[in-house]
Amino acid sequence: MSDTTPAPTPQPADLADRAAALDAADDLAELRERFTLPEGVVYLDGNSLGALPAGVAATTADVVARQWGELLIRSWDESDWWTAPERIGDKIAPLIGAAAGQVVVGDSTSVNLFKALVGAARLAEPGRTRLLVDAATFPTDGYIAASAARMTGLEVVPVDPSAARAIGEDTAVVLLNHVDYRSGRLHDLPALTAAARAAGAVTVWDLCHSAGALPVGLDEHGVDLAVGCTYKYLNGGPGAPAYLYIADRHQAAFDSPLPGWNGHADPFAMTPEFAPADGARRGRVGTPDILSMLALEAALDVWDGVSVEAVRAKSLALTDFFLACVAAYVPRGRVEPVTPAEHAHRGSQVSLRTENAREVMGELIARGVIGDFRAPDVLRFGFTPLYVGFADAERAARTLGHIFG
Amino acid sequence: MSDTTPAPTPQPADLADRAAALDAADDLAELRERFTLPEGVVYLDGNSLGALPAGVAATTADVVARQWGELLIRSWDESDWWTAPERIGDKIAPLIGAAAGQVVVGDSTSVNLFKALVGAARLAEPGRTRLLVDAATFPTDGYIAASAARMTGLEVVPVDPSAARAIGEDTAVVLLNHVDYRSGRLHDLPALTAAARAAGAVTVWDLCHSAGALPVGLDEHGVDLAVGCTYKYLNGGPGAPAYLYIADRHQAAFDSPLPGWNGHADPFAMTPEFAPADGARRGRVGTPDILSMLALEAALDVWDGVSVEAVRAKSLALTDFFLACVAAYVPRGRVEPVTPAEHAHRGSQVSLRTENAREVMGELIARGVIGDFRAPDVLRFGFTPLYVGFADAERAARTLGHIFG
Repeated sequence: MSDTTPAPTPQPADLADRAAALDAADDLAELRERFTLPEGVVYLDGNSLGALPAGVAATTADVVARQWGELLIRSWDESDWWTAPERIGDKIAPLIGAAAGQVVVGDSTSVNLFKALVGAARLAEPGRTRLLVDAATFPTDGYIAASAARMTGLEVVPVDPSAARAIGEDTAVVLLNHVDYRSGRLHDLPALTAAARAAGAVTVWDLCHSAGALPVGLDEHGVDLAVGCTYKYLNGGPGAPAYLYIADRHQAAFDSPLPGWNGHADPFAMTPEFAPADGARRGRVGTPDILSMLALEAALDVWDGVSVEAVRAKSLALTDFFLACVAAYVPRGRVEPVTPAEHAHRGSQVSLRTENAREVMGELIARGVIGDFRAPDVLRFGFTPLYVGFADAERAARTLGHIFG
Repeated sequence: MSDTTPAPTPQPADLADRAAALDAADDLAELRERFTLPEGVVYLDGNSLGALPAGVAATTADVVARQWGELLIRSWDESDWWTAPERIGDKIAPLIGAAAGQVVVGDSTSVNLFKALVGAARLAEPGRTRLLVDAATFPTDGYIAASAARMTGLEVVPVDPSAARAIGEDTAVVLLNHVDYRSGRLHDLPALTAAARAAGAVTVWDLCHSAGALPVGLDEHGVDLAVGCTYKYLNGGPGAPAYLYIADRHQAAFDSPLPGWNGHADPFAMTPEFAPADGARRGRVGTPDILSMLALEAALDVWDGVSVEAVRAKSLALTDFFLACVAAYVPRGRVEPVTPAEHAHRGSQVSLRTENAREVMGELIARGVIGDFRAPDVLRFGFTPLYVGFADAERAARTLGHIFG
């Protein structure tokens, strides 16, 4: 075939062969052994609940039987329970481009959003009145932003997340999702953060759908505050504790609306007045949830020696290949990609719009391909490069083709 | 011995015999088999971290390996993960005297306090300006009360928790601890709640040190809102999720400052506007922490067939007996009971004031008697009637006597 001949539409046999070749050449392929996955299933829902890392079961059993059952109260010191929120925060930090001492784990994403947004409002210059929130946000961000605004005197303004020009002199805080949960669109964190900084606004980024799938670069890009969950691409387990990032330069002034005793400078002094701890530790609230915390800590071991840049490269290769397979297998006009084709705007999931999306996803799951459905008409397929391969992508698209065939 | 002769000070041999007789006559003694406790240890710190119920290890292993590892995302429905916060709330409800549908599990005690206090401020009659907090409160309650007051325009007023007369026409909210964490003093929930109701104030009770140790009677006494942890007398595990009680009559008006997507009437509709769920479910915030939630659910099985009234009777017998043993074994003047002698004012712990309390507790722990220390000078001994017996109380007091001997 000469360079000038247009490539023919790939045929099924070509795609299966290509998948095998891509998997054989994949340096990350062996990471799948770090997970326990059910036989015969293609799991493309790691953007909702990550798969089980192999080391979690043994850790959890030890935490229950020995640390809790045998050592009992002594484990707060002897098993280092007390320092878990900061220690695990430091383990997440390199995955989101943060130096140590700026990330603390605990509570849900929603609760951390509340801390971050109220904290941001209190960091903002007086007189600024607007809290910008991306209009397509995951709902909890919008609900919590409304509450934080109500309690700090700000006004919530929904904005197009790609439009930096909405950020102005009256902007106190900007809350954006790094990757949109429904469409899979990746927003331009460096440019939007720079625009907010130039306008004097405080940025809060929600990393739920990006952390662990692509480089974030919080420190490099000068982000002020960020939150994220740990149960998607970080594989921490169902409802695992979330995290809060407080940039070094803001820590001394960060004024949490949830000043629980764990965030006190000297918690066991049990003084009547609250004195915030130094560092990200002031983002702690109540007693940390140890079973879930230590399961998450064990889950993060799968990242040993893994570069987020390599994960990103494989993620893009996987989603490119999946889109090519969908184009080849699914009759024209039956699905429409919602996720941007340009790499610069794509996270680690592919969303396809289709009729009867709920039923189609049910049929896919019945055939062993697990993605999920988001109302009203979106099929979501998440690609976690640590345990998803190219043959998985090919099978998923082929199965989708059969359903429409 | 005639009825009019004063009883002689008990001798050690008498006390060991009496302990054996009391244990032999104890209907609750067999409940100890529902727990896994280390050999050779007397565990009197269940008021800080309850012991491990025997069923938790198997449940946790199943949640990790099968529900998460095999079923993955499907477990939100198939393993009933989604409904865990209300379901486990209903399992706690009878232990605190609440009918079903009023208790929801999730988040830490501190976070639930924030929901309850802001919610209470919004339920209070306009124009009322004061938030009363007991002056000896566990610190996080005071810190969170200060934040809630700051964000709702109230003024925090520390009060003597036994003085109902502080509650007046300007009182919006009253936050009280049912049992004081340091002294073990039990406050009069029925009378104080009645006084608050008569004055038109909203009550918030912190049940951390009472739930599971004595009857609470939230519904019977007309409490408005309550919170509590589950890792003390409820044995849910280190940092296990806390709970929030919202009385039926307040649910429709309860306006949470943390309106996360889990508290939405239709979470998966993912609408931009928040519409609160009916019932206690509107107290939910983010995605529930499933590992810890389901460990707690299994832990609560130890309550099958157990009456809280029987637990209370044994608790008082245990603390009476421990105080008698301390009087017999410890040289006069070396320790001073802080916990009230009157049953009506005693929780399920005994606090003893002594010099060098930190060192004394270290020595006790080294000798296999685990209690804890609270600054500056308090030894705390918690008595969990489900797994502590009279011989444990005798050994603890005898060991304390040896340290001072």
